[in-house]
Amino acid sequence: MNWRRTKFSIVAIVLQVVFIIIFGVLGEYGESARAKSPTPAYDVASMYPYFQDVHVMIFIGFGFLMTFLKRYGFSAVSVNLLVAAFVLQWAYIVRGIIHHVAHGHAKFPVHLGEMLSADFAAATVLISFGAVLGKTSPSQLLVMAIIEVVLSQVNEWIGLDKLGAVDVGESMYIHAFGAYFGLAVARVLHNEKAQEAKSEGSVYHSDIFSMVGKCTVHVQNATLAGGVALGTSANMPLQPWAAMLIGCIAGVISVVGYQYITPFLDSKLKIHDTCGVNNLHGMPGILAGIVGAIFAAIANTDSWGESMYEIFPMTVPMVNTTEFAEAQAEFSVIEPGAGRSSGIQGGYQMLALVITLVVAIIGGAVTGLLLRLPCFDNVEGNRMFDDREFFIVEAQGFPHNESGDETIEDGNDTKMRMLSDN
Amino acid sequence: MNWRRTKFSIVAIVLQVVFIIIFGVLGEYGESARAKSPTPAYDVASMYPYFQDVHVMIFIGFGFLMTFLKRYGFSAVSVNLLVAAFVLQWAYIVRGIIHHVAHGHAKFPVHLGEMLSADFAAATVLISFGAVLGKTSPSQLLVMAIIEVVLSQVNEWIGLDKLGAVDVGESMYIHAFGAYFGLAVARVLHNEKAQEAKSEGSVYHSDIFSMVGKCTVHVQNATLAGGVALGTSANMPLQPWAAMLIGCIAGVISVVGYQYITPFLDSKLKIHDTCGVNNLHGMPGILAGIVGAIFAAIANTDSWGESMYEIFPMTVPMVNTTEFAEAQAEFSVIEPGAGRSSGIQGGYQMLALVITLVVAIIGGAVTGLLLRLPCFDNVEGNRMFDDREFFIVEAQGFPHNESGDETIEDGNDTKMRMLSDN
Amino acid sequence: MNWRRTKFSIVAIVLQVVFIIIFGVLGEYGESARAKSPTPAYDVASMYPYFQDVHVMIFIGFGFLMTFLKRYGFSAVSVNLLVAAFVLQWAYIVRGIIHHVAHGHAKFPVHLGEMLSADFAAATVLISFGAVLGKTSPSQLLVMAIIEVVLSQVNEWIGLDKLGAVDVGESMYIHAFGAYFGLAVARVLHNEKAQEAKSEGSVYHSDIFSMVGKCTVHVQNATLAGGVALGTSANMPLQPWAAMLIGCIAGVISVVGYQYITPFLDSKLKIHDTCGVNNLHGMPGILAGIVGAIFAAIANTDSWGESMYEIFPMTVPMVNTTEFAEAQAEFSVIEPGAGRSSGIQGGYQMLALVITLVVAIIGGAVTGLLLRLPCFDNVEGNRMFDDREFFIVEAQGFPHNESGDETIEDGNDTKMRMLSDN
Repeated sequence: MNWRRTKFSIVAIVLQVVFIIIFGVLGEYGESARAKSPTPAYDVASMYPYFQDVHVMIFIGFGFLMTFLKRYGFSAVSVNLLVAAFVLQWAYIVRGIIHHVAHGHAKFPVHLGEMLSADFAAATVLISFGAVLGKTSPSQLLVMAIIEVVLSQVNEWIGLDKLGAVDVGESMYIHAFGAYFGLAVARVLHNEKAQEAKSEGSVYHSDIFSMVGKCTVHVQNATLAGGVALGTSANMPLQPWAAMLIGCIAGVISVVGYQYITPFLDSKLKIHDTCGVNNLHGMPGILAGIVGAIFAAIANTDSWGESMYEIFPMTVPMVNTTEFAEAQAEFSVIEPGAGRSSGIQGGYQMLALVITLVVAIIGGAVTGLLLRLPCFDNVEGNRMFDDREFFIVEAQGFPHNESGDETIEDGNDTKMRMLSDN
Repeated sequence: MNWRRTKFSIVAIVLQVVFIIIFGVLGEYGESARAKSPTPAYDVASMYPYFQDVHVMIFIGFGFLMTFLKRYGFSAVSVNLLVAAFVLQWAYIVRGIIHHVAHGHAKFPVHLGEMLSADFAAATVLISFGAVLGKTSPSQLLVMAIIEVVLSQVNEWIGLDKLGAVDVGESMYIHAFGAYFGLAVARVLHNEKAQEAKSEGSVYHSDIFSMVGKCTVHVQNATLAGGVALGTSANMPLQPWAAMLIGCIAGVISVVGYQYITPFLDSKLKIHDTCGVNNLHGMPGILAGIVGAIFAAIANTDSWGESMYEIFPMTVPMVNTTEFAEAQAEFSVIEPGAGRSSGIQGGYQMLALVITLVVAIIGGAVTGLLLRLPCFDNVEGNRMFDDREFFIVEAQGFPHNESGDETIEDGNDTKMRMLSDN
Repeated sequence: MNWRRTKFSIVAIVLQVVFIIIFGVLGEYGESARAKSPTPAYDVASMYPYFQDVHVMIFIGFGFLMTFLKRYGFSAVSVNLLVAAFVLQWAYIVRGIIHHVAHGHAKFPVHLGEMLSADFAAATVLISFGAVLGKTSPSQLLVMAIIEVVLSQVNEWIGLDKLGAVDVGESMYIHAFGAYFGLAVARVLHNEKAQEAKSEGSVYHSDIFSMVGKCTVHVQNATLAGGVALGTSANMPLQPWAAMLIGCIAGVISVVGYQYITPFLDSKLKIHDTCGVNNLHGMPGILAGIVGAIFAAIANTDSWGESMYEIFPMTVPMVNTTEFAEAQAEFSVIEPGAGRSSGIQGGYQMLALVITLVVAIIGGAVTGLLLRLPCFDNVEGNRMFDDREFFIVEAQGFPHNESGDETIEDGNDTKMRMLSDN
């Protein structure tokens, strides 16, 4: 018996039982998910393609982006799938409590739209996972995921519901949060022996694997970074050339980050960023937040028309003011708002970005300290970046360690994990 | 010339010509598929995303789930594609005859909705394929597919149309049927030399391949099994916690099956289940049928409302009864039904499950006996699980047999199949 | 520093800047793409699944179809992605000028529908790319792409807008054009040393990679060729059996092409077709054009009804004729047409096919001559089909050259490109 794996299994089973009980007490199917005839309701039909694309990205895309490590393909894909399945349920519960139970409802609704939101919440954790990949045990990842979901959802609630800072593509609340939370955890878990780990690096074929998601590292990062950088302003009326320009800037930031900033973080700040999430999610997420704040600050109804009020509801004039009467007359606006000026809205956007970074970094650091507790089975030295830590791998075809060291010393269960030794 | 491959090619070409003739005599485009403008009709637009997802699953997903065998990647993917293409057409014809021509129509309609049903029918055969993978020749698979499509579609017609036993996710009529039909074939084709085949087992990289579909074996099976287990009751009003619980039970069954039942079937009952379809489709399919029967038995209009009549049309009261008048008044029900009680409906659900298992097992066993005829080129001994049986494979990069035996003895065409020998 | 790679980077950056400026001057979001609320407009919702499927095919599918070369996986996928990103923008600009700016509009609209068209335009170039894969530098590919997009879009405008020759699946204007343009380029770039290149050929695993798109070569080609062969007539009322028959003929043509025509072209005509685009896109594209012309020539309102006028608007009778009055009365036709007979329409269809082939072949040949200029860094001899020409590849796991020659002689930057030498 391998006690670490047994312990993880027990924790996972207990958690799953707890989740089922919570869903039993607090969850019920929403109207559109009620079982009737086999024909799906209209809103299900219209949302289905979006949901499938996001769901496949979460469960397959993220896993395969992480298979580039030479001897960590099994762990990356499997643990990604396992953690995503847990996080999805937990995010559902946390969101249900924040957005429904805390508002006095007895139950939270279960339907496709909320499952899409839970999928996005799972993405936050998987981004952080990219920063600590290969250096953490499944137990650590599970604990990290449970804490991070709560913090990231509370942060989103502060930014979106309390501050009215919009982020339609979730570049601040998901991408930037996930990246800096993960990097803070990686910094606290930093281990001098990590540099010695022989297994890091990719072999030719496994690098092609990760391209099923997107391809070779620089091209891959630059491409995705462009999308992240436009997330906050995606529903704002910037012109095509501006979108292209911001995308290009993000691409350049990402490549420069990979070439110069990642090595600097590793050698000088002791932040080892396995998948380069700073380049792909962190810096582009910050850029997205700044771009969103700038566009908010220059918004005006002369050039944006009614869409300014639709995008930033807080800028709608306050009730019983001349401005609100004018807005009603000109744009058929119904609900009064907070009467914010564009500049103030821009300030709130920046505030949400700063709060996001602070919550992510402090939250990640505290979580990292917790994960150093021995009970969570920190992974060290030669056991890092190695599938054999958690999987039974046949030796034939498995990329060998250059040192010729085939086995991982782990007391008396080495043989059990190494079928090829039999 | 390799006579076995030539024979297979001739059979495949003849079959294709026969299919075209049958489609010419009996098929015509349905209304929604009639050619008009390049803009697709509304029902095509709404069904397109579902069709694409299912179609990709059938043609790509199933193939890649089967690539985990060390030296059988080419065969699994190619033969899967070839057989799926044949089965799709044949299932279309069989369904057209059962559901249209047998009802007095001169033609059966060809449109996207029916193609989706034919895709599902192809899935039945591909599941059985998973039980016999690597142990059967393409000729055997083709014959098996032709017989199985007829039996499975007749079985579905008995269960669905005659018994009124619903199975919206086809867990009984597709998953359980396909699994036990395939296992029965595998049992009859059982060959003492199979145990000696050196090629079975997976190498590191090919195991990652099969994860494009879903990942490492246990996680993979447990994940998919959950979906299968809910297939029959997917349109019934069970609550989220119940769906989660049934999914977990299916996951446990699947893992236990892989760990204990598959080896037991192999060693004691001489049923070698290459892909473990019993764990992924068989047992979860039975569980789905039982869950569906239980829910049918406890259904009542007090808690389910009108949806009970929508899900189980046979439970609608009979014409000219007081109950039917009440149902019309309360739920605006239009068509009278068979007046079944919930308990009786549950009994019919169980009956459909039992009939499915009986037809699958007896049909599979008889089919297996037929496949033992020498003309179908049974695959034995060292030739099992080996791509070189049907493909010309360059030796470099091909996983070697530990015994050092590079060639397959096959008379005078060994050199032709082994380019590397030149 | 590697001057060739630096030069390519500079050209790529300059081009991107130019594209952004053109989009700034000429582009503006179309009505359906205007930023409003996060809810997508109806036409976006209905077009989204089609766009995603095509977009994934262009950016992922094409790249992976090309990864079958033993040591060219990185180049095929990365350069495919890079070129596709450039071509998409350039095609957008070229189409915008041809279809909007040239008609007196100040701006061209940017929206999902036009992006789908630009994706298809990119496909033309990627098909040509398949003919020259491994034998061209990225600089050459970029120049080729820029020229080909202009020629192919002008050709489509001549055929579709000027001649009224319909091709709903773009088998002539995209598949045939792309194939013969690429083959003409390959012929002009032909290099006696190509036959000596040791790297061509595929290893077992990389052949499986390319199956993510479709599987082993013959099955793969035959399957796809069937779709291409029906592209021109896809919206015409041919019956299911005719579609099946044409698909089978295309499959046979494709397999015969791969087995006999590709080697013949290579050895006798000095046309080396890396991916066999003649079999998959060229000949099936010509077949599609001929089938389309035949169906046009036999079209009549007796059996086709109103759809004849919908599919071939040029066959609607001319204004102020008795025939137009009859067409209005019988089919509620609104717009008068050119009064073409079916035979004449068939002739125009054939004319469009011939013009497409002439423009593709002459255009490709002239482009090939241009690409021979030394400034475009022609790839020759041992450097062909080798990732190390443009990527830094770790030696472990990289398929070795049988000659034992590990390095590519390239002056003083060999060490930089070969990390394994350190």
